[in-house]
Amino acid sequence: MRLYGYCRSSASFRVRIALNLKGLAYETVPIHLRRNDQARPEYLAIDPQGLVPALDNDGRILIQSPAIIEYLEETWPEPPLLPRSPEERARVRALAAIVACDIHPINNLRVLRYLSHALGRGAEEIAAWYNHWIGTGFQAIEMLLARDTATGIFCHGDQPGLADIALVPQVVNAERYRLDMAPYPTIARIFDSCMALAAFRAAHPDRQPDAEP
Amino acid sequence: MRLYGYCRSSASFRVRIALNLKGLAYETVPIHLRRNDQARPEYLAIDPQGLVPALDNDGRILIQSPAIIEYLEETWPEPPLLPRSPEERARVRALAAIVACDIHPINNLRVLRYLSHALGRGAEEIAAWYNHWIGTGFQAIEMLLARDTATGIFCHGDQPGLADIALVPQVVNAERYRLDMAPYPTIARIFDSCMALAAFRAAHPDRQPDAEP
Repeated sequence: MRLYGYCRSSASFRVRIALNLKGLAYETVPIHLRRNDQARPEYLAIDPQGLVPALDNDGRILIQSPAIIEYLEETWPEPPLLPRSPEERARVRALAAIVACDIHPINNLRVLRYLSHALGRGAEEIAAWYNHWIGTGFQAIEMLLARDTATGIFCHGDQPGLADIALVPQVVNAERYRLDMAPYPTIARIFDSCMALAAFRAAHPDRQPDAEP
Repeated sequence: MRLYGYCRSSASFRVRIALNLKGLAYETVPIHLRRNDQARPEYLAIDPQGLVPALDNDGRILIQSPAIIEYLEETWPEPPLLPRSPEERARVRALAAIVACDIHPINNLRVLRYLSHALGRGAEEIAAWYNHWIGTGFQAIEMLLARDTATGIFCHGDQPGLADIALVPQVVNAERYRLDMAPYPTIARIFDSCMALAAFRAAHPDRQPDAEP
C-alpha cells in the first residue's frame, strides 16, 4: 500500500496509526501541504478534494480518513479498532467524530489560510480560533470519557481503537499551539497510554520521512 | 425512539432521512439552536457537546450523526444504507465524509457566530465564507460522482444510501444561501431523485414540528 500524506496532517497521522496497529506495511508518498503539492494536477487526479491522506491499495484509491479506517477495519479485522456491540461502536465512533468532524476540519490549514488571506486575521486571532475549537471539543470529550465506566486504559476499554486514533493527533496539534491540557486529565492520561505504544509513536509527525526540523 | 434535533440542522436532517428510510418511527424533541436550547444544562446532560442531533433509543443516548447512522445500519440492516463490498462502502463513506467533515462543520451556526461575534465579520463576508466551503466540497463531490460508473440514480447505484443522506441536507443549505448549482449537474440530478422519495421529503426542515415560517 501507498499512503499519500503529510507528516503534520492529523488525518494522515490517524491512518498511519491504524495501519501500524493492524501491522500493515505501507510506503509513504509525501504531499507537502505548505508547498501546495496537494493542488497539483497529478494529485488532484488522485483526490479531487486536494486533501490528504489518500491510500492506494493495489491501484484502488481511497480518500477521507474515516472511510479509509473503516475500510481497513472491514478488510483486516484483527486487531479490531471498534468494539463488538452496535452501542459500543456508536460510542467509539461518536468520540472519533467529535475530533474528525467538529475540531479538526475547522482548524485545517486551508481554513487558517482563509482566515489569514481572505479575512485578514492576524496570528493572535488565528491562534485563539485554533485553541477555541480544540478546547470546545476537548471539554466534551473529557466529560464523555470521565463519566463513563466504559473508558479504560484507552478511550474504550483496555485496547487502543478508533477513538484513540482520532484523539492522539489532535493532542499533538494542541501541544504545538501550547493549549493548556490541565482541564483534560483523562485525555492527557489516555494520550500517554497511546504514546507508550510503538504503533502510535512510529506514526508521529516527527518520525516521518518528510518530517521538518 | 426520540430524536433531539432542530428543523434546520443538517445533521438532524440526515438522521431523520435515515430513520425514514429504515421505516423507524420516532418522536421529535425540538432543540431550538437560535434560542440556545442546546446550551441548557438539561440538554448538556444529554450531549455535553451541546450540538444536535442526539438519539434516545430506549434510554441509551447516541450522539454524532455519522455514529448514529452507522448504529441504525448495524441494528436495522434493511434496507441497507451502505453497499456490500469494503471498497464500495469506502466510496460511499468518503462521499458522506466530504460533507460531514469538510463542508458542514465549517459552516455550522457556532462557527458563523464566532466569525460574527468574535471576529466582527459582516453578513457579506459570512455568506462568502459559507458558499466558499460548500463550493469547494461540491466541486470535489461532483467530480467524484461524474467520473465514476458506480454513480447511478443515486450517489451509489440505484438505491438511496449514506452518501445521499449526507448530500441532500447540504444542497438544501446551499439553496438557502442561493449558491448557483449550475456547476454541479450530477449533484442536482441526484438531489431531485432523492426529493422524489417520501423518506427524504418528510425529513425536510419545512416539514418538521419546529419548522419556522
